[in-house]
Amino acid sequence: MTRAPVPALAPGERRLEGPVAHYLARVLRLRAGSEFIAFDPAGGTEADAVVLHVQGDAIAVRFGATRPGRAAAPRELTWIQGFAKGDKCDAIVRDATELGATRIVIASTRRSIVKLDDARTSARVTRWSRIAEEAARQCGRSEAPRVDRPMPWADALACAGAGDGRFCLWEGATEALAPGLFDVLARGAPLAFACGPEGGIEDDEVAQARAQGWRTASLGPLLLRTETVAAAVLGAVRVWSGLGRRSGA
Amino acid sequence: MTRAPVPALAPGERRLEGPVAHYLARVLRLRAGSEFIAFDPAGGTEADAVVLHVQGDAIAVRFGATRPGRAAAPRELTWIQGFAKGDKCDAIVRDATELGATRIVIASTRRSIVKLDDARTSARVTRWSRIAEEAARQCGRSEAPRVDRPMPWADALACAGAGDGRFCLWEGATEALAPGLFDVLARGAPLAFACGPEGGIEDDEVAQARAQGWRTASLGPLLLRTETVAAAVLGAVRVWSGLGRRSGA
Repeated sequence: MTRAPVPALAPGERRLEGPVAHYLARVLRLRAGSEFIAFDPAGGTEADAVVLHVQGDAIAVRFGATRPGRAAAPRELTWIQGFAKGDKCDAIVRDATELGATRIVIASTRRSIVKLDDARTSARVTRWSRIAEEAARQCGRSEAPRVDRPMPWADALACAGAGDGRFCLWEGATEALAPGLFDVLARGAPLAFACGPEGGIEDDEVAQARAQGWRTASLGPLLLRTETVAAAVLGAVRVWSGLGRRSGA
Repeated sequence: MTRAPVPALAPGERRLEGPVAHYLARVLRLRAGSEFIAFDPAGGTEADAVVLHVQGDAIAVRFGATRPGRAAAPRELTWIQGFAKGDKCDAIVRDATELGATRIVIASTRRSIVKLDDARTSARVTRWSRIAEEAARQCGRSEAPRVDRPMPWADALACAGAGDGRFCLWEGATEALAPGLFDVLARGAPLAFACGPEGGIEDDEVAQARAQGWRTASLGPLLLRTETVAAAVLGAVRVWSGLGRRSGA
């Protein structure tokens, strides 16, 4: 059954317009009588839905009773990403969503080259949120991660709360990620990772992380491009979360 | 010190032309007297080098004694990838190289849409090999992975030899990847993974893998795009390989 994101999902009939209607009518080519499963990217709920009619760029849908979403991300998982150039952050948002991030924060750092004015920043956040919703839909997640408006590195670090599951990825760290990560995974505690932009983070940014209680961790002697780190680390979380499960994990 | 790939590395003076010379002279902007570390992507060796002179698109270099490369990938690690559309395989080759693959085999499967004639296939293999060398250089690996000419799925599976470290990634598998992978990693045995193209693999392709002694393994209920799988799974291998090391891992 086709799954599609519908914000503010509630039972009853509703006329949808804008990108949601476009997606249902133009991309999925739903027609009067088409049935699908609607899920609310923010609320984590889903509902059976049937298209009543399509008219130009609007679509009328009847939604059934809402229920908890099928596959919510299993744990609180924050990805803090140094603002990278070009469309790298698009790819990172997509990868992080597929791999279970529940919150994505783009952080401006000392080596971030990107400088956007307010309007372009807003456009970018809208774009990332749409990418996250689309990626959630494609991989079968019932809720998309929250994508914050870009903020300074120190503020971004503060978004992850407290706890010992916060790892600042830094090539200068003397501790490998694995031992600490395995410990946190085994306890099912919330996780957060912070990763610099192309040029990495500077010493004072490492110090800010430590001052907030983050652990520093290295991924080994071979360098990774910043756009590979999210997939690699969140992939490790995904795979190692299956340890001990017998099936379907 | 700058590191650059030089095929068939040997001590003595040598005149280089073609892409290697272009990379040294145009990209790295080396000049007469410039020193760098040359590494042989195939042989896993490296040597100190000094530029003697640059002339148009040729460059003369004196190489010192060769020695074992600085950071070879630590284990035999084969990635078999169902032939995916567009430039997805480029990205997969790059990610797999960064994350330690020693051999990459692109396999044509029943759901692979790409059909290339001989000449275009050769051009593609040359391109992938160059991407692998470039990615190895950027991440500090002394040797690039071998990239094979595309071959049928069953032949590709046979490239990985025997052993119980061969995992066919399939969403229909009832076993999670983690327990089996954990066991193989702990023993330091060779690893191989096989991953389908966009549409996944078909039942008879799963059967071919099983008949050759591959284990099937699932990455969980959320679907991944085929271009995310290599980074996620090889990221898990990379992170785990840091277990137990005290520093720099």
